[in-house]
Amino acid sequence: MLARSHRSLHALPCTRRVLGAQIRSPLSQQAVRRKSGPYGYTQAKALVFSQNGEPSEVLKLHTHSISPSLPKRSVLLRALAAPINPADINTIQGTYGSQPSFTSLIGTSSPSAIPGNEGVFEVVATGDSSLPVHKGDWVVPAVAQFGTWRTHAVADVDEVLKINKEGLRATQAATISVNPSTAYRILRAYGPSAGISAGLGMRPLEVGSGQWFIQNGANSGVGRAAIQLGRLWGLRSINVIRERESEQETESLRAELTELGADVVVTEKQFLSREWKDQLAEITNKGREHIGLGLNCVGGKSATAVARSLSESGTMVSYGGMARQPIALPVGLLIFKDIRVVGFWLSRWNQQDAAGRKHMIDYIVDLIREGKLRDVPLREVAWNWETDASVLAQEVQGGLKGFKGGKGIFVFGDT
Amino acid sequence: MLARSHRSLHALPCTRRVLGAQIRSPLSQQAVRRKSGPYGYTQAKALVFSQNGEPSEVLKLHTHSISPSLPKRSVLLRALAAPINPADINTIQGTYGSQPSFTSLIGTSSPSAIPGNEGVFEVVATGDSSLPVHKGDWVVPAVAQFGTWRTHAVADVDEVLKINKEGLRATQAATISVNPSTAYRILRAYGPSAGISAGLGMRPLEVGSGQWFIQNGANSGVGRAAIQLGRLWGLRSINVIRERESEQETESLRAELTELGADVVVTEKQFLSREWKDQLAEITNKGREHIGLGLNCVGGKSATAVARSLSESGTMVSYGGMARQPIALPVGLLIFKDIRVVGFWLSRWNQQDAAGRKHMIDYIVDLIREGKLRDVPLREVAWNWETDASVLAQEVQGGLKGFKGGKGIFVFGDT
Repeated sequence: MLARSHRSLHALPCTRRVLGAQIRSPLSQQAVRRKSGPYGYTQAKALVFSQNGEPSEVLKLHTHSISPSLPKRSVLLRALAAPINPADINTIQGTYGSQPSFTSLIGTSSPSAIPGNEGVFEVVATGDSSLPVHKGDWVVPAVAQFGTWRTHAVADVDEVLKINKEGLRATQAATISVNPSTAYRILRAYGPSAGISAGLGMRPLEVGSGQWFIQNGANSGVGRAAIQLGRLWGLRSINVIRERESEQETESLRAELTELGADVVVTEKQFLSREWKDQLAEITNKGREHIGLGLNCVGGKSATAVARSLSESGTMVSYGGMARQPIALPVGLLIFKDIRVVGFWLSRWNQQDAAGRKHMIDYIVDLIREGKLRDVPLREVAWNWETDASVLAQEVQGGLKGFKGGKGIFVFGDT
Repeated sequence: MLARSHRSLHALPCTRRVLGAQIRSPLSQQAVRRKSGPYGYTQAKALVFSQNGEPSEVLKLHTHSISPSLPKRSVLLRALAAPINPADINTIQGTYGSQPSFTSLIGTSSPSAIPGNEGVFEVVATGDSSLPVHKGDWVVPAVAQFGTWRTHAVADVDEVLKINKEGLRATQAATISVNPSTAYRILRAYGPSAGISAGLGMRPLEVGSGQWFIQNGANSGVGRAAIQLGRLWGLRSINVIRERESEQETESLRAELTELGADVVVTEKQFLSREWKDQLAEITNKGREHIGLGLNCVGGKSATAVARSLSESGTMVSYGGMARQPIALPVGLLIFKDIRVVGFWLSRWNQQDAAGRKHMIDYIVDLIREGKLRDVPLREVAWNWETDASVLAQEVQGGLKGFKGGKGIFVFGDT
């Protein structure tokens, strides 16, 4: 797997300075790409940024070499696919909640970070045969900010999670860690409260109860996963989408989400109109059916409307803020209607419950394999050895713009 | 106790229509006030409103008579003191979260409600000697919207809670049910989270830990009680007050709160300034000491600043919205800092945990008796039989204006 015999050995930029555990021996300057073999170096490329800013300006493609002598607890990985998520872009821009450390580990001239939280890799070599992963296995990152936008990586075995690859496409495996996981975790953790007598804690929406949740950004990766997981777990969903450019496109998206299992799909215009209150009453049988949970990834007015749509003691969970506007919360909603407002950050949860995460990933992978959890529409971006840095950076730059007909995902070919 | 022998028997308006259980036998029209005796009627007055609006316009003083033949489970009560709380005024205005039922039970010509959530009454007669309260006992309402702004009441024995009156002033007993109770309950119910692994529940600030909480409106009844209870329980408080009219008055208030046990007192101006972040870092030893809980009774910018001042995974509890502005919440505070935002409504909690409420009231009464929980500054408003309706209504109307040198409290004299 290390050797790609058909690779052309044309001139390539090469790393001058090589630092850290990942690169065992410095390479002398050379003009040709080394072939890699059982004892050879692996040539790798990674998108990196050494300062925050717009992706098209700050992302560089850095080429380096990875030594074949792996530390005992390490694995050498080859990237198969890695999506471009809004959180990744925000991380590059510096507006995300945490910032990766800038290091010189892969020999960049300035300390840099590799973006990408999500992706799937194939194990090409391990430091020790007794490790729980083996050559040919597929793994996903077990830690936040793993840096998936690179052709190869050396990682500690504890930093990855093996998944059962049987029957999975790489693009499917690459997109489970963030979006379906977020949806899974929010639906599992929150719901109608057990009430003040239980200490104002949250309890899950009861599986099979037909209880409602409501979400904006329903067309997002998280939104689509929530629709499908909710349906599988016997919940019902009210889904808010932005109007598309034409009515036909809006109807087409509505049909798509309904096909996934959405019970109700409304446009944001409807949702923010005066009529929504009455429409909601109709949906919920005049309020007799409770809406215990709201998912917000937009913020601003849309978030306020989600909070208002909840039934008494409902919880609104924010996992994003695409509108870049704060949530305006009438105090009375909190006091008299007992609405609770919290946030969800997958990275935090991943850190705190590794066992729960493994269980969840296995569960999601099984659902995908069984065809019960469908992918979001993806726009594949080929990343081959020759792909130019600017092509990759432009794809990232475009990733925050709406209505693109799919989430961008790097699919690694000849690397 | 029913008879007040020194009462003058001058002409009084009298009830024509008498309805409901409270009034056993209709009274014929008469021009003199009846003396009450063991078998006599009790003459009573109540502030009532039959439509929402400004207190000075909609409050009327209604006179009626109470039959001496009480139902077995009922008690006849004489009011001793009843404060004027913002929630009472909002109820009259119709802006409160719940609305009392308008009834004709005390014979008003239009269906009406009696305002007043808080107060203390003396038991003057009981329907049965086996009831758990007896003549001479002091009781406080056990239910919301009891209607305390009246000279007398007939209540079901379950609607009141006996308190140990020994060593208490009536004004002290009258002011425990709402404000100290709210402070007690919020401090007991919320605090630094046990973390996502514990299901994102809330846990109490640990007693004796020296953990911080922060509150705006620190000069309010709830605020003062929170300072004192917090101090008693080994917590520390950061207290935000509005600037008074002169710097001297501000300093005087600061000294007053410090004397009660406030660790830090800041003005709203300081609190909303750019410098606050650094000042907060200084207070909390550069963030090493966590602020796990925020109390908000203001809303608007002040609430946002409370939320921002919290440490990771802190909870902001809103129990009021004096500024009448929604809370603006940056989504990142919820997601990355894991701030949780909830409301607290005492009425709801009272309904759901009667046993906990009794325990709490006894505890608070004991603290007051021992001098460990001091009253808010009160401005006593005498309510005697002759007191004019307009005098009472004006006191209520003025109750929402700030800086009055004390919370208004009706003190019942010759009624």
